[in-house]
Amino acid sequence: MRALIPLASIALLGAAPPAKFVTPTDIVASAPASAWRVIPPEYLLIIDFKSGARAVIQLAPEFAPVHVANIRKLARAGWWDGAAIYRVQDNYVVQWGHNDDRPLPPGIVAKPPAEYDRPLTGLPLRPFPWRDSYAPRTGYALGWPVAVDRNRANLTHCYGMVGVGRDLSPDTGTGGELYAVIGQAPRHLDRNIAIVGRVIAGIDTMSSLPRGTEALGFYKERASDVPIKSGRLAADMAPAERPAFEAMDTASPAFAAYLHARANRRDDFFIRPAGGVDLCNAPVPVRPVKR
Amino acid sequence: MRALIPLASIALLGAAPPAKFVTPTDIVASAPASAWRVIPPEYLLIIDFKSGARAVIQLAPEFAPVHVANIRKLARAGWWDGAAIYRVQDNYVVQWGHNDDRPLPPGIVAKPPAEYDRPLTGLPLRPFPWRDSYAPRTGYALGWPVAVDRNRANLTHCYGMVGVGRDLSPDTGTGGELYAVIGQAPRHLDRNIAIVGRVIAGIDTMSSLPRGTEALGFYKERASDVPIKSGRLAADMAPAERPAFEAMDTASPAFAAYLHARANRRDDFFIRPAGGVDLCNAPVPVRPVKR
Repeated sequence: MRALIPLASIALLGAAPPAKFVTPTDIVASAPASAWRVIPPEYLLIIDFKSGARAVIQLAPEFAPVHVANIRKLARAGWWDGAAIYRVQDNYVVQWGHNDDRPLPPGIVAKPPAEYDRPLTGLPLRPFPWRDSYAPRTGYALGWPVAVDRNRANLTHCYGMVGVGRDLSPDTGTGGELYAVIGQAPRHLDRNIAIVGRVIAGIDTMSSLPRGTEALGFYKERASDVPIKSGRLAADMAPAERPAFEAMDTASPAFAAYLHARANRRDDFFIRPAGGVDLCNAPVPVRPVKR
Repeated sequence: MRALIPLASIALLGAAPPAKFVTPTDIVASAPASAWRVIPPEYLLIIDFKSGARAVIQLAPEFAPVHVANIRKLARAGWWDGAAIYRVQDNYVVQWGHNDDRPLPPGIVAKPPAEYDRPLTGLPLRPFPWRDSYAPRTGYALGWPVAVDRNRANLTHCYGMVGVGRDLSPDTGTGGELYAVIGQAPRHLDRNIAIVGRVIAGIDTMSSLPRGTEALGFYKERASDVPIKSGRLAADMAPAERPAFEAMDTASPAFAAYLHARANRRDDFFIRPAGGVDLCNAPVPVRPVKR
């Protein structure tokens, strides 16, 4: 017997299927050009694996300026050329970089500030109306999901979000080792580790890797590591080769409609809409720019 | 540079690392025997893949008795011998069974009731004190995470939970096609599809499979399917071959301490405990029974 369960993630790259009710996918597909913002090439870190697979990370200098400045310098110094994924922990994270004690390139800030708790003042916040287990308030600001507590905003550890590996505090990490979330949002890491961006393409390449068998999901053998060919900023690539993406403006009416539809699924498949949604189950729509 | 981020999932199968503060892992490791309940072999569905990998599913007849009765009959009729995983959708589900229109074995209830909204009356509920985006109340009952609304309890679509593939309503699925959650909890499926259990071992075998490239994550080619050798109840295996597991009693003081520690992580790595946790980020501890 053929039996289906429905699409949860919106089909970011596909066309909307026919439906009686307006679905999140419909809203994304029909959103006007004014609802989209092209992500500048200086904000895109392109990770090319030796396998030929690619992951694209949108950086968040609005929230972690020192770490992101480090990451840009690391890319320009060729830090990720020859790096690898060396840790894959089920329902948690994939981590990559150099799993050794090599020195950082010149110009890297070795001890960045702890980049969370950005003041909310001046930050345009679209409040998220549903409850959250971790923070008194949540919302979206500048295209990013945030948790808000006492007028401080923090990026949240949702699926695909990229954070900075660090040692025990007071270490804050440099950006040389990065991880991406591949499971249930580990929101207990919010305000404990700086988030520097999110994977906007190719997360499935990372999430489908074999899990490491050592403690914390580290691979036991170096032969298991997943080699990275290069890590570059799109801004440093020839214009014809640059990938380009646009994200939905979280202040747009289309995004408000999208959130409402995510919380009240009425696709043919559904019997009862939930009437709410988790912040990490309403990812900001991102798609390639049509050329 | 070597930089770590901490273990989120408790090490269900390992020993507790040394720590200054009592961690969730410590609590699980030191919980008394009275805090554990052996899962009866009639409640364990053992899926053996042709690759040699194994997944073990704990069934939930307390919440979905008709579907679980079907699943037991299907196992005894050899339904999963020669079945396959044919769908893997990133950040969503893995689905298996027979992706065709073959008839069901005799004795299967073709149209089970919609098995959610179990009356709360008589159900021992440990209330979960933190907020939830989807339901007014949540908690644990009989060892399972539940959402509660108007005195009705429903199992929740957390990581690893197993549900029943179905067609459009009024179809409720038979249990012949099953799926497991491998991403951010798709809680919008609660009260729309019956949940029949959870994967208690081997979820990493499923979650690390290549993602399907067709709509909804279906594999394009049948050659991509992941063949299943057999699906058996532990009760039907020779006693010496039976895997055996025990789950923490969600009514026990140890489980209360575990929840508190999950919400207030004070391991050396943490700077600020969250003071809350998502229901799906506090999985019920399960471990093999020592023989």
